Amino acid sequence: MMDTFFNPDGIAVIGATDDPGKGGHYLLNNIISGYRGEIFPVNPKYTALSGLPCYPDVASIPRPFDLAIYFIPAQYLPQTIDACAQKHVKGIIIESAGFSEVGDVGRRLQEESVSRAKMSGIRLWGPNCMGLIDARKRHVFSFMYTDSWKTLLKPGTVSMVVQSGMLSAGFLLMILERGGLGINKLCSIGNKCDVHETELLEYLVCDDDTGVIGLYLESIVDSRRFLKIASSSHKPIILLKGGRSPEGARAAMSHTASMAGNHAILASAMRQAGIIEVFDVHELMDFLRGFSKTSSFSHDGGTAIVTFSGAGGILTTDALHESNLRLARLSEQTLDAMKSVYPKWMAPSNPADVWPAIEANGINTVFHAVTEALMHDPDVDSLIFHILANWVDSSLFSSLNRLKNELGKPVVAWLTGNGERFHVIRRDLEEMGIPVFDEMTRGVHFLRGLRRHFSRKDSR
Amino acid sequence: MMDTFFNPDGIAVIGATDDPGKGGHYLLNNIISGYRGEIFPVNPKYTALSGLPCYPDVASIPRPFDLAIYFIPAQYLPQTIDACAQKHVKGIIIESAGFSEVGDVGRRLQEESVSRAKMSGIRLWGPNCMGLIDARKRHVFSFMYTDSWKTLLKPGTVSMVVQSGMLSAGFLLMILERGGLGINKLCSIGNKCDVHETELLEYLVCDDDTGVIGLYLESIVDSRRFLKIASSSHKPIILLKGGRSPEGARAAMSHTASMAGNHAILASAMRQAGIIEVFDVHELMDFLRGFSKTSSFSHDGGTAIVTFSGAGGILTTDALHESNLRLARLSEQTLDAMKSVYPKWMAPSNPADVWPAIEANGINTVFHAVTEALMHDPDVDSLIFHILANWVDSSLFSSLNRLKNELGKPVVAWLTGNGERFHVIRRDLEEMGIPVFDEMTRGVHFLRGLRRHFSRKDSR
Repeated sequence: MMDTFFNPDGIAVIGATDDPGKGGHYLLNNIISGYRGEIFPVNPKYTALSGLPCYPDVASIPRPFDLAIYFIPAQYLPQTIDACAQKHVKGIIIESAGFSEVGDVGRRLQEESVSRAKMSGIRLWGPNCMGLIDARKRHVFSFMYTDSWKTLLKPGTVSMVVQSGMLSAGFLLMILERGGLGINKLCSIGNKCDVHETELLEYLVCDDDTGVIGLYLESIVDSRRFLKIASSSHKPIILLKGGRSPEGARAAMSHTASMAGNHAILASAMRQAGIIEVFDVHELMDFLRGFSKTSSFSHDGGTAIVTFSGAGGILTTDALHESNLRLARLSEQTLDAMKSVYPKWMAPSNPADVWPAIEANGINTVFHAVTEALMHDPDVDSLIFHILANWVDSSLFSSLNRLKNELGKPVVAWLTGNGERFHVIRRDLEEMGIPVFDEMTRGVHFLRGLRRHFSRKDSR
Repeated sequence: MMDTFFNPDGIAVIGATDDPGKGGHYLLNNIISGYRGEIFPVNPKYTALSGLPCYPDVASIPRPFDLAIYFIPAQYLPQTIDACAQKHVKGIIIESAGFSEVGDVGRRLQEESVSRAKMSGIRLWGPNCMGLIDARKRHVFSFMYTDSWKTLLKPGTVSMVVQSGMLSAGFLLMILERGGLGINKLCSIGNKCDVHETELLEYLVCDDDTGVIGLYLESIVDSRRFLKIASSSHKPIILLKGGRSPEGARAAMSHTASMAGNHAILASAMRQAGIIEVFDVHELMDFLRGFSKTSSFSHDGGTAIVTFSGAGGILTTDALHESNLRLARLSEQTLDAMKSVYPKWMAPSNPADVWPAIEANGINTVFHAVTEALMHDPDVDSLIFHILANWVDSSLFSSLNRLKNELGKPVVAWLTGNGERFHVIRRDLEEMGIPVFDEMTRGVHFLRGLRRHFSRKDSR
């Protein structure tokens, strides 16, 4: 059933306009730029829009179609549902606000709409949402008021379900600009009066194009089924839950009219179901980027650290310890290989502080020798390296990246540096498949999440 | 005594060179570009360097001088100390490595140097360090191999003592480039064979130019005195401690030969002494930026949140709760003032989700009306606002910034956005005096630290 929303045969755009100050303008043009089926703009003020015939109302559309996208004032929804029913519409995405989030009148309007739609077998998505995006198909069924997505949106394996406009628009662009996050499907579900996270989670768990699932939710409508689906999923599911605190839950009530429930109980059940909980939006995106780059993890050893800074190595070691992770214990063979590029006075160890070796033998020689030795060590199951972007070319990382894929040992970068170079190296590393964390602690927390996911997956 | 290092009368630069591949080249030129006293390059290979007479050795320098900066191989240090004693030198900054951090031979060399210096009344700074910077005086007594500091280093009130080269060079540039961190004195103390953090902490606590003190330390040599000085300080002291875990402590041993000690005991004593502990380098810098912009805090109420995103408001509320902070309870008067710009259907509350109001009345009107009302509310003692950089001009924030200073109510920004605009708005806000946090949780943790500091300060 969800497929109607993702692969509709014909779309009516109710509220399309050529006024560039209005969302209906972007909505229509976003759909035109990617969707390959028939599009029916609806607005009594126009006879044509963006080169397409425009219809005064839904009834005038000359053939049945699957999907309507609703972007006119809330009050017209019930009658629009009836008109859509006549056209055999299967689903309506309601992007307008003004429903249960605005109080009693809106709530009654929403309830009436749901019951009318149910009678006609029409599924409702939203209201009060940004719609959906499928980056692989270039479907942007959303009123996003900017064209930046055309260059920034890179297809990938991360799909998301979010109960927030911010997360699907302004903030998303910020994250996409950083690079390294490949999106598959992005679902903004707002008040979720009918279609909700559980149905979408099920759809995404079965969706071949989706590898990693990210969620921002203020409530979970059918938590039993939700947890059951999560339990059965082999894909990582990362959740940021809004309304964890009593005050936050009250605010969620007025945002999307969501009952947030008791978070402590939910959190423990989610953990058992293998869901990985995160606590802010950047962390959510960090985890999604990282998981999308990691297809296997042997997780039977410890972590190796390569750093040009003693302090960086020490702080990363502390952070591993505080996340219940451990340092790898290096074999004699590994230590010998490291010795070949270390100065005589320095005994190799983990964390590997390679600065004196770099001074003696140059960064290329040292980075290759040390990472190669560490990656082959039987007790190393993952590696964190720390590097100053201004010193290196991205080609330095290609053999390490190959080893990572061959050996199933995740590699995480903590990058410092300044100027344009910093952004270039970060983007290159991300595109190569090595997730970059701006804060070392975030990289460590990601490794912890990774270990949790793969331990659970492999123990079943 | 520490003043010798910060305000020396004459400096010898031992290891100065014109080879741009060597640190001694940068060291000399960094000193020349800011220091106004006499400079004596020392290197037997040259008779002149950068327009100054160059001396073959310390003995040949024609007059007594206060400070020597040592940047030649470790083995020559003892004889250099003796030569310096003849010139009535008061302090030597040893930036070379190869001492106790490289094992027994180095340790003996370091010990011998310390005892020779002691006999001559010479204080030693380092070894294995980056030296010091005084941004107000433009003293850069460091071999930092880049000129970026000339544009990036902005004088301010933040002084730091760090036991790491990374923190004082590559990483610092990254942080400075971001903007908003005004530096006063930056002390990199390496192996701290003689001058150590406690003496410098005392100096900085009494230093009129220093308002906020940041520390990265792997050990605390005289922890009793250190804690006593911290207890007596009215200035905020922010500490990042490396070697908190047993494995991290072992790594610290080989980095700067530091005995890290039992962290749990130390952490509790530090807390009692009013020291604020942070856990990664970005957090350290975030706190320093934030504290340097906050001179007073009434801390008798709760926090107000202004957001354009329901989700942003909810997540910030959750984060406040999880940091034991609370939302302000708004007065009727405040709510009435907010109503004047809110749409009819929406009841104002805290967090203030102003998106519907912005749609109705525009961002300028709404932001001014809402922040003004909130800042004057008797139960609001601090404000977090969340804004999309791409929507605004920096002039939007000037009246809020004025209120913040007049009322002693700290304001924290959580900024999203993309493109050049994001960087411009972030820099403008920082320069105006409003700290910007890229992650909302970081802003909340900062407010918690701020509340802790000012509660302690005001209760004495």
